[in-house]
Amino acid sequence: MAVNYREFAKRFETISAISMTPFFPDTKEIDWDGVKENINFLLDHGAQVIVPCGNTSEFYALTLAEAKEEIRRVVEWVDGRALVLAGIGYSAETAIELGKYAQEVGADAVMIHQPIQPYVTDRGAVSYFKKIIESLDIPSVLYFKDPHLSDQVLKELASLEKLVAVKYAINDLPRFAKVTRDIPADEYNLTWVCGTAEKWAPFYFHAGAKGFTSGLINVYPEKSFEMLLGLQQGDTEAVWRVWEETLEFENLRGKYNNGNNVVVVKEAMNQIGLTAGVTREPVDPLDEGDKQAVTQLLQKWGLLKVQV
Amino acid sequence: MAVNYREFAKRFETISAISMTPFFPDTKEIDWDGVKENINFLLDHGAQVIVPCGNTSEFYALTLAEAKEEIRRVVEWVDGRALVLAGIGYSAETAIELGKYAQEVGADAVMIHQPIQPYVTDRGAVSYFKKIIESLDIPSVLYFKDPHLSDQVLKELASLEKLVAVKYAINDLPRFAKVTRDIPADEYNLTWVCGTAEKWAPFYFHAGAKGFTSGLINVYPEKSFEMLLGLQQGDTEAVWRVWEETLEFENLRGKYNNGNNVVVVKEAMNQIGLTAGVTREPVDPLDEGDKQAVTQLLQKWGLLKVQV
Repeated sequence: MAVNYREFAKRFETISAISMTPFFPDTKEIDWDGVKENINFLLDHGAQVIVPCGNTSEFYALTLAEAKEEIRRVVEWVDGRALVLAGIGYSAETAIELGKYAQEVGADAVMIHQPIQPYVTDRGAVSYFKKIIESLDIPSVLYFKDPHLSDQVLKELASLEKLVAVKYAINDLPRFAKVTRDIPADEYNLTWVCGTAEKWAPFYFHAGAKGFTSGLINVYPEKSFEMLLGLQQGDTEAVWRVWEETLEFENLRGKYNNGNNVVVVKEAMNQIGLTAGVTREPVDPLDEGDKQAVTQLLQKWGLLKVQV
Repeated sequence: MAVNYREFAKRFETISAISMTPFFPDTKEIDWDGVKENINFLLDHGAQVIVPCGNTSEFYALTLAEAKEEIRRVVEWVDGRALVLAGIGYSAETAIELGKYAQEVGADAVMIHQPIQPYVTDRGAVSYFKKIIESLDIPSVLYFKDPHLSDQVLKELASLEKLVAVKYAINDLPRFAKVTRDIPADEYNLTWVCGTAEKWAPFYFHAGAKGFTSGLINVYPEKSFEMLLGLQQGDTEAVWRVWEETLEFENLRGKYNNGNNVVVVKEAMNQIGLTAGVTREPVDPLDEGDKQAVTQLLQKWGLLKVQV
């Protein structure tokens, strides 16, 4: 059955929900029941794209065996109710190994992380991404984050039919606006996705994005969808209202050069009764001040049943 | 047999030679004969510390199985003639797995790479490094590169007796000078190593470093040792002469946000008749202009027998 990549690309015109990996506080082993609960929470709230092994899933804190198991189990638990976009990365060979595993267990597409190598050239990055994309049967989404790479890299990869979306995460809006003009989504069968969540989504959408990634969706999915709907319907007032309501949370995640990115989401989930456990190294639990900031925000949002 | 960590630390008061991983141009598989030739070249020229699986060894372009094999073979080939410092990294669990493998096959110490996680906190980084250091019997060297991490991380780790050196790679010299004063090498049994090679070594030594890492040593070891000797003997004139002679090479490696770091060394090695092969993704071969710049420099250095 031939895949219609143009149609497939459109499935990313929504929120890409980065799923969490709860770890037990004592052993730091993966709490698989917690992962499942988190996936069901996302599905119950209407998530259409679930991303295991994203950055906020603490992909790089997992062993390769654990990353594979996370992909396999998430595919099984989602069971066709949403699209599963599996994060893959590391060396080209390792990324291909993870990608082949993902397609074997039924993931719908892979998200290729930014190369972790400290030394990367533009032409080398093209080779890296192209090798991975062409080695897999399922479609790929690029995670484009390193501001030192030229957008020429994307230009060279855009014509690959199996590249269906780019998750752009360089918050240089004029640069992003230019690249969406140089590589028009409809000519290339790909969807531009804002890779830096609710805080940046309004700006990216203004410049051509049709989807955004979210970690907040694990805590307060109603707000994430309110923003998506506002963006899709051009309801500027709603967009800015949600933007303002969620900004403090996103800024708290941005503290310590984004060191707080995951642990703030986990803390919030735990406080409202979901199961997120702790983070693994190199991220420690929040300090008391930041914990209280999370509590105050959850109170303001009305998500805490009991006042702490 | 109890290790004298103070004595052991002093063994890093030299050049840490980052060994290369040659790949065959057609298959990009590892050319093990080439690795061995490179190791023998380094030993023949007096290298006392050999570092397989460093950044310039393209550690992150290797699979885990390949990284292990590189460590095992290098230990075997060095055969006690130098200290082998094996690079390890990735998730804490994976780093421990690599480290245990390294000690099992006889590596003398491990170099723990900067965490690759996109989100890192100070306390989390302490947990990460400490967990790895304490899980291993052989001593550890820290690779400290992320300017967003506080030097407080080092302060908290310095008292671990198995931490024998810090390879500091943040080129903020006042910051480095301060940290070497806050954590005096002789009080803590560790050696401060300049992690950014010949270009920066004079400045780091002025502030307390006693060793430096080198990629140039794979091409022109005489120059690297000339600089080391000059630094050790306080021969300022010699130091600046070598610094000036090697600056262009290091600047060429620094092009494209250091994208050229490895490929320039490989190109130079190949041109003078050593075996370096090609780089793996995400680095492509040098363009013609940079190749010619390498040739001109090698000619100036008198390393090319035939004028190309």
